[in-house]
Amino acid sequence: MRKLQTIDAAEAGAVVDAAAARATEMGVPQNIAIVDEAGHLVAFRRMDGAKFISIEIALAKAFTAAGARKATRDIAPVTIPGEPGFGIQNLLGGRFTTLAGGIPLKLGDVVVGAIGVSSGSTQEDHVVAQAGADFFASGRPGQQ
Amino acid sequence: MRKLQTIDAAEAGAVVDAAAARATEMGVPQNIAIVDEAGHLVAFRRMDGAKFISIEIALAKAFTAAGARKATRDIAPVTIPGEPGFGIQNLLGGRFTTLAGGIPLKLGDVVVGAIGVSSGSTQEDHVVAQAGADFFASGRPGQQ
Amino acid sequence: MRKLQTIDAAEAGAVVDAAAARATEMGVPQNIAIVDEAGHLVAFRRMDGAKFISIEIALAKAFTAAGARKATRDIAPVTIPGEPGFGIQNLLGGRFTTLAGGIPLKLGDVVVGAIGVSSGSTQEDHVVAQAGADFFASGRPGQQ
Amino acid sequence: MRKLQTIDAAEAGAVVDAAAARATEMGVPQNIAIVDEAGHLVAFRRMDGAKFISIEIALAKAFTAAGARKATRDIAPVTIPGEPGFGIQNLLGGRFTTLAGGIPLKLGDVVVGAIGVSSGSTQEDHVVAQAGADFFASGRPGQQ
Repeated sequence: MRKLQTIDAAEAGAVVDAAAARATEMGVPQNIAIVDEAGHLVAFRRMDGAKFISIEIALAKAFTAAGARKATRDIAPVTIPGEPGFGIQNLLGGRFTTLAGGIPLKLGDVVVGAIGVSSGSTQEDHVVAQAGADFFASGRPGQQ
Repeated sequence: MRKLQTIDAAEAGAVVDAAAARATEMGVPQNIAIVDEAGHLVAFRRMDGAKFISIEIALAKAFTAAGARKATRDIAPVTIPGEPGFGIQNLLGGRFTTLAGGIPLKLGDVVVGAIGVSSGSTQEDHVVAQAGADFFASGRPGQQ
Repeated sequence: MRKLQTIDAAEAGAVVDAAAARATEMGVPQNIAIVDEAGHLVAFRRMDGAKFISIEIALAKAFTAAGARKATRDIAPVTIPGEPGFGIQNLLGGRFTTLAGGIPLKLGDVVVGAIGVSSGSTQEDHVVAQAGADFFASGRPGQQ
Repeated sequence: MRKLQTIDAAEAGAVVDAAAARATEMGVPQNIAIVDEAGHLVAFRRMDGAKFISIEIALAKAFTAAGARKATRDIAPVTIPGEPGFGIQNLLGGRFTTLAGGIPLKLGDVVVGAIGVSSGSTQEDHVVAQAGADFFASGRPGQQ
């Protein structure tokens, strides 16, 4: 039998709060999604003013980061034409993306969820996702 | 120019909290989704133990309640075979549902969002959605 | 070579106006779609206050009426369980519907387009679609 | 509660007229779509002779311009292989496009809708969309 660990609702909510706090500092409202280790949605917040078109993109970033077990922006280089991953964006019905802003949430080396952020520039999105991931890595939110 | 009012992120989060509190009392973990007046997702929480298959169903219930401007369960009777709404569930790419658990959030008579709840029985889902809607109706959460 | 006749943009716009005038009389804002004889969209108007969820339904009603060459509500009876058309709503990716409110636009016996209306009750939708179809039948709008 | 402003049906119809007048001058029939601030369709016209394949493209251009809050052609440069937006066209189920011809409609700095135009060259499409946006910016159509 496999034993799994995955992010819980309280932890996911705390990661959203941490990411949203960073977005507020930056003055860029964001869509923030957290998925569990199976890629299923656990928490979501659209901050006031975040783009509606980026809701689905935030979900895709979190889904991809959990599923690929790496940050979405780190997948991009191997997907350009001529590289071995070219065309991967066409798979999974639009849920796979290499746009920056998706980052796994890890317990040691194990991916237990992911955060996806979208509405700013991809650089801004990545910074906010990293703030969420950093918070999760430090001290285990919602649990101690 | 049309002037609209729609639920904001703080209000949506407070409605999720209220609905989750009711679900906890009932001992039934739930997926809880809040959309704005245009049907776009604003907030989501999957309580620990809620079914992953019901994530998308909660989203559909909220989308439908905002779009149809009525509780999803009140649409159902006219959609059975022989009734004028038969077949409507096939439209909108699986985002339209008459399963109980979707309820509009109103400011007076105006729909400014909706809540969708799914993972329990449809009766349980409706009760939790109603708890969220009642909370929103009373006192305007997040704004006092 | 087949010679076809199909509704033009001016005629379609005039049918929308006629249907919208009827909807205004009824006090029920509507989504109104006109397709050509091939089922492709020619004109659309969402009156202020019409439901966003009904945009796609209005399109489906017009598409179905043009394609089936009959009013959508007249298709419904043969699609209930046990009847020969049962299940047809599952075809065509959600573009086929038997909800009342879709009516062909005819030149004599030939279907040259269709109107689809959605946002009120299906009865109200049908009345508004009929107003559009009656206008088209009488005097040929936008042409004399 | 968030307060929003969005384009109304009369304004949308006037923008379609203005864009269509420009297309007529150019001798290039067009599909012209107007969406509201939430990306939902408000008005559409297919001018006689416009390509049926471009109907859906015009809708996508308007949806994208409203959602991304910028002209579709201005998104394109960052989406080529190697750039940070590469692959974004695969998201949103074919409703996201960087083809020129989609432009936001703004009230000051706030996006209250968008126009999408398709059937000519992308350059021609953009010119016609710009004519619609310019008309909207000047004098506020349908409201004086």
